[in-house]
Amino acid sequence: MVDVPRGDQLVVSVDAFVAGRHFEPSWLTPREIGYRATAAALSDLAAMAALPIGILLAINTPHEWRDRLTGIADGVGQAVRDANAKIVGGNIAASSELSLTITVLGHAREGLGRGGAVVGNRLYVTGALGGPGAAVGAWKRGVEPSEFAHARFVHPVPRIHEARWLADRGATACIDISDGVIADAGHIVAASGKQLEIQIDRLPTIAGVATADAAKSGEEYELLVAAPELDARAFRAAFGLDLTEIGAVVDGPAGVTTFEAGVRVAPVLGHDHFSE
Amino acid sequence: MVDVPRGDQLVVSVDAFVAGRHFEPSWLTPREIGYRATAAALSDLAAMAALPIGILLAINTPHEWRDRLTGIADGVGQAVRDANAKIVGGNIAASSELSLTITVLGHAREGLGRGGAVVGNRLYVTGALGGPGAAVGAWKRGVEPSEFAHARFVHPVPRIHEARWLADRGATACIDISDGVIADAGHIVAASGKQLEIQIDRLPTIAGVATADAAKSGEEYELLVAAPELDARAFRAAFGLDLTEIGAVVDGPAGVTTFEAGVRVAPVLGHDHFSE
Repeated sequence: MVDVPRGDQLVVSVDAFVAGRHFEPSWLTPREIGYRATAAALSDLAAMAALPIGILLAINTPHEWRDRLTGIADGVGQAVRDANAKIVGGNIAASSELSLTITVLGHAREGLGRGGAVVGNRLYVTGALGGPGAAVGAWKRGVEPSEFAHARFVHPVPRIHEARWLADRGATACIDISDGVIADAGHIVAASGKQLEIQIDRLPTIAGVATADAAKSGEEYELLVAAPELDARAFRAAFGLDLTEIGAVVDGPAGVTTFEAGVRVAPVLGHDHFSE
Repeated sequence: MVDVPRGDQLVVSVDAFVAGRHFEPSWLTPREIGYRATAAALSDLAAMAALPIGILLAINTPHEWRDRLTGIADGVGQAVRDANAKIVGGNIAASSELSLTITVLGHAREGLGRGGAVVGNRLYVTGALGGPGAAVGAWKRGVEPSEFAHARFVHPVPRIHEARWLADRGATACIDISDGVIADAGHIVAASGKQLEIQIDRLPTIAGVATADAAKSGEEYELLVAAPELDARAFRAAFGLDLTEIGAVVDGPAGVTTFEAGVRVAPVLGHDHFSE
């Protein structure tokens, strides 16, 4: 039994994490696999400005993974506690391939979608981008990523309270950055039917990462939001996190236009697991 | 956004169906795969005497299955409509193995669990058992199952309204028969801590199936329920379905005791996918 606060609506989402597709098991401890998948799934609630209630965890597991399931479950449990949620259901099934499918339940008085962006809105990004992309790049080259890039990859933070703050201040559209900021801006375009201008050189990045690389770094789980002008200092004071204006919603045909130093450049798209 | 009727509680459950583990793809059309998985997942709501609200469907799919996904989705959609529910979320991910993970959302004023059985309750089963077991047995022998056994396998019926009827008449514990009626009685024992006596020769079976085979036939999605004495005629009048008394909750140590023609016999356990 699950309680939904009176007057609020239930918000739900489901996400799957398949070993060898969404993560390389050798890059992560079992605990990190569980933490990361759960935080990523909870990030969908943040994008809708919903507060978490609980998750349902379905693990499909090959026999050889069964002794690592406790570690995975520990990571899931930690991410759930960190989000002030709980585990409200689960399933375990034998399979030939490890996967975690996580359904998240949340509640919101007024949710936030991708379709509400209006001309005149600014575009903002929370935090600093490029960490997960840098970590994956390092692993693929056979080297250890920097500690910060590693932490950003294995320990994403669902921006739950940040999203509520943004929604309360008039945000009109929001998405969590999973495919890369430009590709995800395309999802806002698809839902809003507006033109989004993004200044690539304004993208906030972690140290040592170029803005062009940050633009296509996926699985960030930072938020891209369209909103009226926001007080970035107040945001930083509240969360200890940057809120960076990176562009605007403008008149024009639906699409994403990218600029560097004021000059229009071809959009850099991020990765899309399924089309690989 | 999902609406939960005011005053009711949200009830949730998740179930996974892995090709080659929970079903042999060659036995089923894509539409049947979708229908059966969804009906089976919704059956968990029936077991809790909850009414369906919606489902979230996560499909992990190998490339070679992608042209059959429409058929699977059609079957899911039909099962959802048949249960007066809707699809409220979904995900699709590339994988090496086909699986469907289905989260079901329902609502109940007072749910029904497995732990409430009390001494003096009778045990009842809805419908007739043995169809899915007979169908699987036939396929494994390389022959076509009877039309009725086939239908029982590919088109399980979540006993949603039947469960409400039973709950309204004082049912204390309920489970949907997925592992075989004796094995599932064991789940009621585990939760209730009571002794359950089951008369094997009273098990309702489909034509041509022995009671011993019906006892271990899994994936039935009929209900096993502990309740005060019930009016089976009224049940039949309401649903056109048998309600058969098969035993009782008695004094004694927690466990399942089985009898045939009044003589105690060793329990016949059903299948358990995970332990295979």
